[in-house]
Amino acid sequence: MRVSVLFSGGKDSSIAAILLERFFEVELVTCSFSVLPVGDVARETAKRLGFPHRVVRLDMQALEQAYELLIQDGFPKRAIDHIHLTAIKTLASDKDVVFIADGIRRDDRVPVPEMSQIRSIEDRYGVSYMSPLKGFGRVAVNELVRQHLVIEEGQSENVIKADYETELRELIRTRAGAQRISELFPSHIQSRVIERKKVSGKELQTICTHD
Amino acid sequence: MRVSVLFSGGKDSSIAAILLERFFEVELVTCSFSVLPVGDVARETAKRLGFPHRVVRLDMQALEQAYELLIQDGFPKRAIDHIHLTAIKTLASDKDVVFIADGIRRDDRVPVPEMSQIRSIEDRYGVSYMSPLKGFGRVAVNELVRQHLVIEEGQSENVIKADYETELRELIRTRAGAQRISELFPSHIQSRVIERKKVSGKELQTICTHD
Repeated sequence: MRVSVLFSGGKDSSIAAILLERFFEVELVTCSFSVLPVGDVARETAKRLGFPHRVVRLDMQALEQAYELLIQDGFPKRAIDHIHLTAIKTLASDKDVVFIADGIRRDDRVPVPEMSQIRSIEDRYGVSYMSPLKGFGRVAVNELVRQHLVIEEGQSENVIKADYETELRELIRTRAGAQRISELFPSHIQSRVIERKKVSGKELQTICTHD
Repeated sequence: MRVSVLFSGGKDSSIAAILLERFFEVELVTCSFSVLPVGDVARETAKRLGFPHRVVRLDMQALEQAYELLIQDGFPKRAIDHIHLTAIKTLASDKDVVFIADGIRRDDRVPVPEMSQIRSIEDRYGVSYMSPLKGFGRVAVNELVRQHLVIEEGQSENVIKADYETELRELIRTRAGAQRISELFPSHIQSRVIERKKVSGKELQTICTHD
């Protein structure tokens, strides 16, 4: 069974993929409106993690709608939720995709899809959506990251990422100026994955023990 | 790092443990009020899964409180939630316990702990609580079960389990008669774990590939 993991190049979607690799054949999928070459950034990270990767182009209309929501609200929650749901729907409509996953954690405030919308997509397209980190708090996710990844952290403006925010920020920059970005987006710590740690002998032994 | 997984002998807590074994040293913990020998039932299953197991005795007062809630409400949600939270608190107050997990899934209606209560327990006791299946829907959990477990399913009254319901039902039986049980508890399909499937060569290879 294959799972398509929505991949931003950040630690959360990386750990989600690592958590699932034992149960599914993982492919990383980066969604992009082709406003910036975010797919290329993500591809580099995917290579370091050792997973196959592809870029899926999203309909530009969804970015325009997200832009409208962001301007209306003055903060990005609904805009990011809209792009995220568009990404899930776009993947779900691919007839070769059955399992879709993302890196959403228990304590994330955005994106957080409505369960009613998710169930509707699952029923309509015959797919199954997973957020493997949804039951993990900050300390637990940090522990998984510590075991498996070498990361670099920084303010969101200094780390190039392939998340939903990146292209939306770029659209704001071209239409309303760089100043407007910092008014609309809270500054937060972003992570970039430098490399994946080798699987330890102990870890392999744990799984092999039952064999 | 060790994780204590609340264990009922059912497929959900079994799969939660299997999901976590790659990242943590797993111990299975069955909570019991010693009304029935549920710890012994769970120990047998734990042995088949290949995990260490212990029984933790819960304060009988919590079962009395759950009984009151059940009689007041006429359905078991608040009662089961109360026992579940008591189990988490009891484990959290053990100074050797840092990570606590359970088998709650995305679509479960009970038990579902309030996040505010969970965060309060995490802060107060310095523990981290995880529900590794919280981001998995029915189809996805079934896929994990298919890969790893041989299970038997049946109506809840016919399968002996070590879940929170079992001892509460027994208390109802002794105080109000067997008839009252079926009025208070909806009949639902329960699962029992027969054995664990061997880890496949392909699965090991997937994880080893990066090494």
